[in-house]
Amino acid sequence: MSFGEIDKLAVSTARLLSVDQVCKANSGHPGAPLGLAPAAHVLFSQMKMNPKNPNWVNRDRFVLSNGHACALLYSMLHLTGYDFSIEDLKNFRQLDSRTPGHPERELPGVEVTTGPLGQGICNAVGLAIAQANFAATYNKPGFEISDNYTYSFCGDGCLQEGVSSEASSLAGHLKLGNLILIYDDNRITIDGKTSLSFTEDVAKRYEAYGWEVITVENGNEDLAGIAAAIAKAKQNKEQPTMIKLHTTIGFGSLNANTSGVHGSPLKPEDLKQLRQKFGFNPDKSFQVPQEVYDFYQKKVLQPGVEANKKWDQLLKAYEQKYPELGADLARRLAGQLPQDWAAKLPTYTPADSAFATRKLSEIVFQHIYDELPEMIGGSADLTPSNLTRWKEAVDFQPPSTGLGDFKGRYLRYGIREHGMGAIMNGIAAFGANYKPYGGAFMNFLGYAAGAIRVSALAEENVIWVATHDSIGVGEDGPTHQPIETLSHFRAMPNLHVFRPADGNEVSAAYKVAFESTGTPSVIALTRQNLPQLEGSSIEKAVKGGYVLQECADADITLAATGSEVSLSVEAAKLLAAKGIKARIVSLPDFLTFDKQPQEYRLSVLPDRIPVLSVEVLSTSGWGKYAHQSFGLDRFGASGPAPLVFKKFGFTPEGVATRAEKTVEFYKGQEVISPLRCAF
Amino acid sequence: MSFGEIDKLAVSTARLLSVDQVCKANSGHPGAPLGLAPAAHVLFSQMKMNPKNPNWVNRDRFVLSNGHACALLYSMLHLTGYDFSIEDLKNFRQLDSRTPGHPERELPGVEVTTGPLGQGICNAVGLAIAQANFAATYNKPGFEISDNYTYSFCGDGCLQEGVSSEASSLAGHLKLGNLILIYDDNRITIDGKTSLSFTEDVAKRYEAYGWEVITVENGNEDLAGIAAAIAKAKQNKEQPTMIKLHTTIGFGSLNANTSGVHGSPLKPEDLKQLRQKFGFNPDKSFQVPQEVYDFYQKKVLQPGVEANKKWDQLLKAYEQKYPELGADLARRLAGQLPQDWAAKLPTYTPADSAFATRKLSEIVFQHIYDELPEMIGGSADLTPSNLTRWKEAVDFQPPSTGLGDFKGRYLRYGIREHGMGAIMNGIAAFGANYKPYGGAFMNFLGYAAGAIRVSALAEENVIWVATHDSIGVGEDGPTHQPIETLSHFRAMPNLHVFRPADGNEVSAAYKVAFESTGTPSVIALTRQNLPQLEGSSIEKAVKGGYVLQECADADITLAATGSEVSLSVEAAKLLAAKGIKARIVSLPDFLTFDKQPQEYRLSVLPDRIPVLSVEVLSTSGWGKYAHQSFGLDRFGASGPAPLVFKKFGFTPEGVATRAEKTVEFYKGQEVISPLRCAF
Repeated sequence: MSFGEIDKLAVSTARLLSVDQVCKANSGHPGAPLGLAPAAHVLFSQMKMNPKNPNWVNRDRFVLSNGHACALLYSMLHLTGYDFSIEDLKNFRQLDSRTPGHPERELPGVEVTTGPLGQGICNAVGLAIAQANFAATYNKPGFEISDNYTYSFCGDGCLQEGVSSEASSLAGHLKLGNLILIYDDNRITIDGKTSLSFTEDVAKRYEAYGWEVITVENGNEDLAGIAAAIAKAKQNKEQPTMIKLHTTIGFGSLNANTSGVHGSPLKPEDLKQLRQKFGFNPDKSFQVPQEVYDFYQKKVLQPGVEANKKWDQLLKAYEQKYPELGADLARRLAGQLPQDWAAKLPTYTPADSAFATRKLSEIVFQHIYDELPEMIGGSADLTPSNLTRWKEAVDFQPPSTGLGDFKGRYLRYGIREHGMGAIMNGIAAFGANYKPYGGAFMNFLGYAAGAIRVSALAEENVIWVATHDSIGVGEDGPTHQPIETLSHFRAMPNLHVFRPADGNEVSAAYKVAFESTGTPSVIALTRQNLPQLEGSSIEKAVKGGYVLQECADADITLAATGSEVSLSVEAAKLLAAKGIKARIVSLPDFLTFDKQPQEYRLSVLPDRIPVLSVEVLSTSGWGKYAHQSFGLDRFGASGPAPLVFKKFGFTPEGVATRAEKTVEFYKGQEVISPLRCAF
Repeated sequence: MSFGEIDKLAVSTARLLSVDQVCKANSGHPGAPLGLAPAAHVLFSQMKMNPKNPNWVNRDRFVLSNGHACALLYSMLHLTGYDFSIEDLKNFRQLDSRTPGHPERELPGVEVTTGPLGQGICNAVGLAIAQANFAATYNKPGFEISDNYTYSFCGDGCLQEGVSSEASSLAGHLKLGNLILIYDDNRITIDGKTSLSFTEDVAKRYEAYGWEVITVENGNEDLAGIAAAIAKAKQNKEQPTMIKLHTTIGFGSLNANTSGVHGSPLKPEDLKQLRQKFGFNPDKSFQVPQEVYDFYQKKVLQPGVEANKKWDQLLKAYEQKYPELGADLARRLAGQLPQDWAAKLPTYTPADSAFATRKLSEIVFQHIYDELPEMIGGSADLTPSNLTRWKEAVDFQPPSTGLGDFKGRYLRYGIREHGMGAIMNGIAAFGANYKPYGGAFMNFLGYAAGAIRVSALAEENVIWVATHDSIGVGEDGPTHQPIETLSHFRAMPNLHVFRPADGNEVSAAYKVAFESTGTPSVIALTRQNLPQLEGSSIEKAVKGGYVLQECADADITLAATGSEVSLSVEAAKLLAAKGIKARIVSLPDFLTFDKQPQEYRLSVLPDRIPVLSVEVLSTSGWGKYAHQSFGLDRFGASGPAPLVFKKFGFTPEGVATRAEKTVEFYKGQEVISPLRCAF
């Protein structure tokens, strides 16, 4: 690539457009856009993408891991012809605008939601994994259905966050040659110079991970150097590449190279001199020379539309030559699951054996893996505990390792829960209906909370297989026994949090999780065996809550989840012997239950009957369903699981005693369902 | 150091004792203890410690970051004379035993609670920071009050976790020469060989962080090699050191060098052959040759007792020569705060200016920093936003950088929230009354949840300065606006979660947080200004909840926290104009409020008056105090903060409307306080 005046002009335009957004909003981050505009220009000038069809599956992906630099992204999307008007840019950071303070995935050209530092790099790793798997699955000689690259920008912040270390180590192991990370090495963070806290040798660290590292000394101006680095990185098919780009934060500003320019709008006089410096009218904002529009139209938009068209023809030919694979591909591109896939989900009767729900989860995988090529997942090094691997699974590994291939769908994430969560977000964001899942001990979902929040916010369809879901962990003790985990995730918007009680409910959880089109799932599973329940079914459980055992003139409703449902059934027997009539409600997923019609919900938790919740976890959050709660609002204990349950009163007798007291407490009182709200 | 037959025998004893614990419990991890016993033996043989006084402040610290190897730690503590009997070992992993499934800090010789992988390495970094600060603060020529080392064992799991990357990068930057990490490089994790997911060059990575790396090829047997490596590491005062120790997981077992030996007890025949191999009676468990006891008595216990005695004399002389410093030191070693320190906390009246509570937090620091030399903290690169730095603060930095010194008490954590949290746990665990604090945007406490959980479980007195505590973040948008955060942390046992409403409540929060002796704190602070309230005081707020505005014959109680308290006051005025009488309750800390006598609590939230909670965060968890909740059970939005509040109805009118509906809803109903429990 050669560069001339028009490129310089385009870079200056992008710089000023970005700074103008921040100034108009009087809020935002001008520093990184000023430093990174040259890299953005060079990168976008050669990326394969069709701004008129931002979802084209074979587009190159771009992830702005330093999401605070989004003014630059919006500038580039506007200039290259995405559906971002100059008005949109003028509404930067305004309420309900299309240019929010950090990039949000629902916007065209925004691949993933970023801002929480470190996540974007991991998303890029996930996007690259998905591409490698997609290509290995569908490409055929003469039919390169998938060959795109994934690019990411990041700053020092992203590289200091441990989550990016986890994903970067894995990316090196996986030899993801389709991944190119451009590191904005500007040596400034909010507190000041990186010499305050970040003096490690980043390049050496990435080499240690197995990456190629290329340095560009003058990222502020050396467009040819940037282009050469990208070209070299693309050539290296055996390693991910980091391009270490020396830039000046706030390039051109009077506050350049200081932390003052990171997150504060430029002062009017600074803005003026900046425009002058770049040869623009010093008093005009949001200037785009027509030749810059024309340039991007010719250089990016037209070739992109053309490439997409050619690819569409390729796909058509592919579907003819490979009708079966082609149909599968078409289905996935349409975001559809195979018809009747759910018929493969196992069902159970009370006559079936007791199993740990983690084992029942494994059985589900075994039944459906062949139906769902979009299902790809693994575990954070707990495969034999999480039971996340079907028997015939092939590992996703570089073929050169002899341990698997890129067509493999089982991921060895290593002991990297947070990285796994953020990588799953990237896989889900690839499209092609990818449904990533990942296994971990439920307690250690806490490590991944940052990524799970992004899943929920960005509507990424990922599934957490969260085993060892209570003090039932037993001997490993309180460091490994979750207490607050479900309260935490139930309080997070847009997240399914299942805690199935038996085989039918496990199947129901996966049915909802896989059929979801924008809500991630946590599926909490036991270490210990649970009986198959009388009264459960997939049909009932997919409602999120249902009456497991009805009972006329009930004195109490026992509302439970997971392992405490069968415990409540046992308690109800003891209560019956004392003349107390208990109905049993199973509430495997609050989010789904809350979406049911109020009439149905009130049939599950009706007026006049006090509700006692029974769950061996924090009681926090149960107030919306229960009048009284029996739970565990303290840390657990190390010991054999049955003894630990007993220690905390989680026995049929313990539940029955609390139920009796609850009945006694509400005797003669008017009881209204907690579901009734004043507004 | 030279080694002979007795050392070999001691190593074999430790190996077998560890394996016996696991076998007797039929639960636990024999693999790492078998591989690491030689390192443990060499290390414990030269550590400065007094098993009879495990809290001696100048002891060397040992952190078992791979906490699952705790059988080995318990063996070593037993053998070297700590208060761990052979009966304790026989009760390994039994309920209420002194040998739980992972090491718990309350036990003698257990410095920190480990098990959640990666945390221990960071705790060790914190212990080393505390030591460096302690020494710089109190050492005088001829008076080496503090010169201990911090050692840590870790495995592959700890090194894959991003949290350890964060802390290790910082440790290299800080040139912590007092820190020595022994990496059990056994190439096996639960899923199998590390070749599955962890092929990076760990040594090179640590060199990139600025560490010295020393390799010991035969960690299974080469005691002299291990000793030489430790000696070399101790010599290097300018860098932390990693000793990369090649070992065989399950050394000696029939399943050695496989993942099968990681977390499963040895089979009886394997145990037998192992004992035989080491020259022990194949049929006897828990064998300790008397000469091994004698050896440790002479080699470790006696010199340790002696060293402690000498140090006590040194301290006495120090107190005479430096009476002021000596008194301060004595106070800190007694775990006491200075008398009347709290008198320095600022108080406010409604006539005082409105301030953001983050600013009020800064004012507190400014008032108390000089009183509390044990206060040491910083921010995850958000100093100008978190306002965590007092004006005169000196950075904790290696003197050679010219940026500060080790006497400095302001920590530049970098963009490493999780690492910061885990490092704070280590600083708190050092003793000497250290009170670490750390600043971050509240939403990104989610990144650090793994460490915060350990703080709460292990009763580490750390303080989180969690600013930008709601949609009040404004333009940064939903990626940065917390929703579920407080629900999450309120559901965590043993954690203060303050959300102060004004200056008096901010002072109260810090009073409780600093005076706490085993409960960490999160203090949620606003970005935006709040007025000083009529009716608030430190005395009331330290109860966790109180009546801010009482009102005879009230129709409703508005229970709020933080920025929604003044909002509720405004709403009450609107309600009053409509003839609806509202009382206002401020609930700055649920945990503290829950500890008040029921009578007091019922005076705050009495029967007969419906309670409406008002908090612009998830409503989850409010059920225990409120009949109805007005909150934000969805993600926020990017825009100027006042507009975002308005969008979601958080205006005086919005609150008043919901209050009216609540009053209407409960009209004629018998209302009982949610505080009344059936059991």
